[in-house]
Amino acid sequence: MKLLVINPNTTLSMTDQIAQTARDMARPGTEIIAVQPRQGPSSIQGFHDVAQCQPGVLDIAADHSDADAVIVACFDDTGVDALRCQFDAPVIGIGAAAAHFASLVSCRFSVITTLSRSIPNLRNNLRLYGLDVSCGSIRAAEVPVLDLEDDPGLAESRIAAEIEQAMRQDAAEAIVLGCSGMANLDTRLSEKFQIPVIDGVKCAVTLAESLHAVGLRNSKVGGYAAV
Amino acid sequence: MKLLVINPNTTLSMTDQIAQTARDMARPGTEIIAVQPRQGPSSIQGFHDVAQCQPGVLDIAADHSDADAVIVACFDDTGVDALRCQFDAPVIGIGAAAAHFASLVSCRFSVITTLSRSIPNLRNNLRLYGLDVSCGSIRAAEVPVLDLEDDPGLAESRIAAEIEQAMRQDAAEAIVLGCSGMANLDTRLSEKFQIPVIDGVKCAVTLAESLHAVGLRNSKVGGYAAV
Amino acid sequence: MKLLVINPNTTLSMTDQIAQTARDMARPGTEIIAVQPRQGPSSIQGFHDVAQCQPGVLDIAADHSDADAVIVACFDDTGVDALRCQFDAPVIGIGAAAAHFASLVSCRFSVITTLSRSIPNLRNNLRLYGLDVSCGSIRAAEVPVLDLEDDPGLAESRIAAEIEQAMRQDAAEAIVLGCSGMANLDTRLSEKFQIPVIDGVKCAVTLAESLHAVGLRNSKVGGYAAV
Amino acid sequence: MKLLVINPNTTLSMTDQIAQTARDMARPGTEIIAVQPRQGPSSIQGFHDVAQCQPGVLDIAADHSDADAVIVACFDDTGVDALRCQFDAPVIGIGAAAAHFASLVSCRFSVITTLSRSIPNLRNNLRLYGLDVSCGSIRAAEVPVLDLEDDPGLAESRIAAEIEQAMRQDAAEAIVLGCSGMANLDTRLSEKFQIPVIDGVKCAVTLAESLHAVGLRNSKVGGYAAV
Amino acid sequence: MKLLVINPNTTLSMTDQIAQTARDMARPGTEIIAVQPRQGPSSIQGFHDVAQCQPGVLDIAADHSDADAVIVACFDDTGVDALRCQFDAPVIGIGAAAAHFASLVSCRFSVITTLSRSIPNLRNNLRLYGLDVSCGSIRAAEVPVLDLEDDPGLAESRIAAEIEQAMRQDAAEAIVLGCSGMANLDTRLSEKFQIPVIDGVKCAVTLAESLHAVGLRNSKVGGYAAV
Amino acid sequence: MKLLVINPNTTLSMTDQIAQTARDMARPGTEIIAVQPRQGPSSIQGFHDVAQCQPGVLDIAADHSDADAVIVACFDDTGVDALRCQFDAPVIGIGAAAAHFASLVSCRFSVITTLSRSIPNLRNNLRLYGLDVSCGSIRAAEVPVLDLEDDPGLAESRIAAEIEQAMRQDAAEAIVLGCSGMANLDTRLSEKFQIPVIDGVKCAVTLAESLHAVGLRNSKVGGYAAV
Repeated sequence: MKLLVINPNTTLSMTDQIAQTARDMARPGTEIIAVQPRQGPSSIQGFHDVAQCQPGVLDIAADHSDADAVIVACFDDTGVDALRCQFDAPVIGIGAAAAHFASLVSCRFSVITTLSRSIPNLRNNLRLYGLDVSCGSIRAAEVPVLDLEDDPGLAESRIAAEIEQAMRQDAAEAIVLGCSGMANLDTRLSEKFQIPVIDGVKCAVTLAESLHAVGLRNSKVGGYAAV
Repeated sequence: MKLLVINPNTTLSMTDQIAQTARDMARPGTEIIAVQPRQGPSSIQGFHDVAQCQPGVLDIAADHSDADAVIVACFDDTGVDALRCQFDAPVIGIGAAAAHFASLVSCRFSVITTLSRSIPNLRNNLRLYGLDVSCGSIRAAEVPVLDLEDDPGLAESRIAAEIEQAMRQDAAEAIVLGCSGMANLDTRLSEKFQIPVIDGVKCAVTLAESLHAVGLRNSKVGGYAAV
Repeated sequence: MKLLVINPNTTLSMTDQIAQTARDMARPGTEIIAVQPRQGPSSIQGFHDVAQCQPGVLDIAADHSDADAVIVACFDDTGVDALRCQFDAPVIGIGAAAAHFASLVSCRFSVITTLSRSIPNLRNNLRLYGLDVSCGSIRAAEVPVLDLEDDPGLAESRIAAEIEQAMRQDAAEAIVLGCSGMANLDTRLSEKFQIPVIDGVKCAVTLAESLHAVGLRNSKVGGYAAV
Repeated sequence: MKLLVINPNTTLSMTDQIAQTARDMARPGTEIIAVQPRQGPSSIQGFHDVAQCQPGVLDIAADHSDADAVIVACFDDTGVDALRCQFDAPVIGIGAAAAHFASLVSCRFSVITTLSRSIPNLRNNLRLYGLDVSCGSIRAAEVPVLDLEDDPGLAESRIAAEIEQAMRQDAAEAIVLGCSGMANLDTRLSEKFQIPVIDGVKCAVTLAESLHAVGLRNSKVGGYAAV
Repeated sequence: MKLLVINPNTTLSMTDQIAQTARDMARPGTEIIAVQPRQGPSSIQGFHDVAQCQPGVLDIAADHSDADAVIVACFDDTGVDALRCQFDAPVIGIGAAAAHFASLVSCRFSVITTLSRSIPNLRNNLRLYGLDVSCGSIRAAEVPVLDLEDDPGLAESRIAAEIEQAMRQDAAEAIVLGCSGMANLDTRLSEKFQIPVIDGVKCAVTLAESLHAVGLRNSKVGGYAAV
Repeated sequence: MKLLVINPNTTLSMTDQIAQTARDMARPGTEIIAVQPRQGPSSIQGFHDVAQCQPGVLDIAADHSDADAVIVACFDDTGVDALRCQFDAPVIGIGAAAAHFASLVSCRFSVITTLSRSIPNLRNNLRLYGLDVSCGSIRAAEVPVLDLEDDPGLAESRIAAEIEQAMRQDAAEAIVLGCSGMANLDTRLSEKFQIPVIDGVKCAVTLAESLHAVGLRNSKVGGYAAV
């Protein structure tokens, strides 16, 4: 199957990292096509970036209309609803994928994201999915997205500090890493804290493969009617 | 005060109609500046149009950064959160304005919108505002936005039919007209059904004037932090 | 327009202060008629006072049945539903007004009220309005209503301490002052904390003016049917 | 024990009927003291009556401050919160009692009340109790309270018609009779429809006896702090 | 009346203690028949024990099909829905009984249970009853059920510590003891903290007597249809 | 990977059908081990069967403790929480799997189950997952589980009739087949109605493969702590 993986920001190094994570996760026979918008914000941090990047996402996706499934590799799940109008094929956001999976292996999870300004949109998303009922907290490590690459050691220690607080104060039984740039931390932090620490890119790849395998396509009656 | 009224679609006749409604409503001393994006969809019907029109909305708004308040004259409240990041001045969507006002003059209201495909996004918005608790139903008259101008008689009769159903089946005590293109119907339908029939453009104009009069500005801590 | 402002308690100095705030806020052409019940509790602190004061509120309001809009200047929004049965003209509680406005300029607000005993009724109100979804916390400064006048310095410092906690612990992006007696603190505290600090009397005055300007009247079908 | 049963309206025949139902239900050793306010509305139908009757309820209750438990025999549970401030002894509304009991013998219940205008307050109450999750619908038989006595045959047939609709359309597994004036219909309608048809007066009497037997008293910390 | 009290675990000393509490609470004329499953877990701590004990509960209950009411004396309310299918007579769980009663004497209660692993199932139950709206927190004293007997002093001090936290941090106005093995602590802790501290066994006994007195039986339409 | 598929009832023909569906769906390298309890109810229809079958499910699962993932092939998701305590490996119920997937390809789905008596438990499950926010209705075709095999034509026509109603009345954009015995109908009904018609067995197989591929295991902190 052709799996279109859209990094909705324009930072090529992030697209490459996401592509690598996706390829490592994908099954044999899944071709990963990783793209990014031709123009738009260099990272997605809060409402303004979310709004700005969407036409670029829809536009680049249109070049790959034969994809068998689509992933939006931003924890805000930017443009997912619009893409479901544009595609018959399933469209999965990494935020949704991680939250759905977290709710299947724990009774309560916490999200650790980058900046406080990103929290309200994530809170909105979880409420709309209904998964706020399983979410104990959304915490910010106060590390800008692009610093995750620049100073990974500092980022990891701040994220670890928030995980500790989430377990102690919010009864978190699992952690969702709230940014595609945190993808490489899941294994190490999971071992450190001995609870599931979940990366959305990996979840989204396998979830997209699953929906495709079942043969599910977006309903074209109602909200996702073809444009 | 300068009140920026953004029609998020590119249909000039709608911008003109909205501008007229806004000017008729505005107090002396309120200058209405009605604009539309330089490019984007000609009407906003569902998730795809909502996604497509946002950068155009943000862009045209940037030309008027000295506005004392901003209105988004689309019932989807497209781009409102992003505009609140971009502006210190208050930003009001006509969907939110109408729903807030409806909840203040009735115990339960229904929304009558244009097409079924628009319903899920409106449902999402009401849930995020919390006003779903006062909303008995969202119904579609199945009249495309641009037909509201072309065949107003048919549109009005279909909307009236839905109001009748909303009152009988959903215990609606008030009606919110779910499209800026329905603005001229409120008085006549209100008289016909003897309940409040509410147009969002009018509500948004006075609400924006109110927030400005009180001196409220968007919080720059958290979700609406400056970009 | 005639704007009836009802202080639901019998403390004349509070009525005077509320009247002053309302007059300062009102537009030219808005006549403020400030009244208080002939008898009833001297302050409204919790369920018992709320119950006791209502007939006095309805009774004094009946003397001004020609009002174009009505404000209940108590953060409990005491008697608002009953007044909407009694009047065709819009009726606004200052608690509702402040909470609606707070939800339009921030993603999450906290309420600072006087005493713990007042919190459950405020919590109930916010749930019924649906605005609990935007409310991070309701905190008590533990200052009785009438002490707000007697020792304003102490009151202000206690309120400031709670605002600090609300911002740090509850991610408050805006503050609603939960008592009409706190009206004169909004500007100073807003400057101190650099976030919106919102007084309900001011919001209610402009909101009532807005509803009147739009021509909205209470639905007489259902819960607000005429008595 | 002394069980104070307050009919919050001033219609003596209703007080007598409620007293009779309460005495028939009460255990040996429970003394029923049935009272009504000295003045106030003759029936409680919607928000305005609810507001008007409360001080009369609190006042008459104060004459019986030695009661071991208190019942408010109006389906609106008028004044219950205020009475809990005034009394250490438990205070039960018949609306709450019936709804709690219905949720214990069925998965979903419907309420049949008198008039449409009463529905919004009942809906509010159920939401605040949390029991809206078990309530499939609130329906009005469109029979004014005082007509229940005057034309009992018509009232019963209208109520039966609503029960039939509630079972068919709303999946009601049990019915709550939403007015103290319907108390004598529960047995006959329960036999007719072969599902629980529940009268609040009976439930409240035994529930008050239960709370007293356990020795529970109102918390005086927080919302029910002594006045 | 015959009141069947089922301890769903197989620890005889707990059955005896529960039986004693029930007999002390029961009215003259109520015969307490205390039973336990022939086999199953020795204590109910979390999802696995809940699942394991249910057929034993249903089986032992079948030996007493002439019971006038049934109590499940485990705070998880294990098997209550299934027993309502098996019996016409009312079936009450002690968790539900305590939570319903707590919501009638306070505006917000906290639950203190034994172990963290038990919390998610209790949270689920309260959500399904709707009583989560009145529940400020569920806290674990981290005392295994069977240790409540072995080292009662330690257990009591840990429970007291959690009550103190619940009052201070979660605004608890009443406490529900979240295990049948804590039954003997309610009076002492209630005196110590001067708020209602509620034992579910006592509540369930009187609630079952109440439902029986009113003549209510489980609806056999829908979820509790006879097996 | 070894994928344990548990049919929680004791009807061998259903186990065989489920096994066949699972094998057809599974990827190469996934070994399907289909089992059923040694004893228990022959079909799972409502609360009583759900309670009765659980120890048998846990017991047979214990024979396969080396499974890499577990599926509970009953739409009630019977025993899933308990199995997550017993296993480190992921455990998926077919009800949850279908509902999660439906929420990813539509804005609103309806469930068509067998009998009315099954609806309340399904409603409870969806509320606990949070997916009730995307569920428009749960409808019963009034076909007992075992009749699905005996008279498939009648079953299919009744299910189709409910789908039609769900689309027209409940705005369903997708359909979830609410019983593992309906697994072979999804393709035909999906073609007939041109919307996604979703079978839980297929979804659960691919979802379990996905969770395993990502390496997720149940959190052992909190509700799923090892027994």
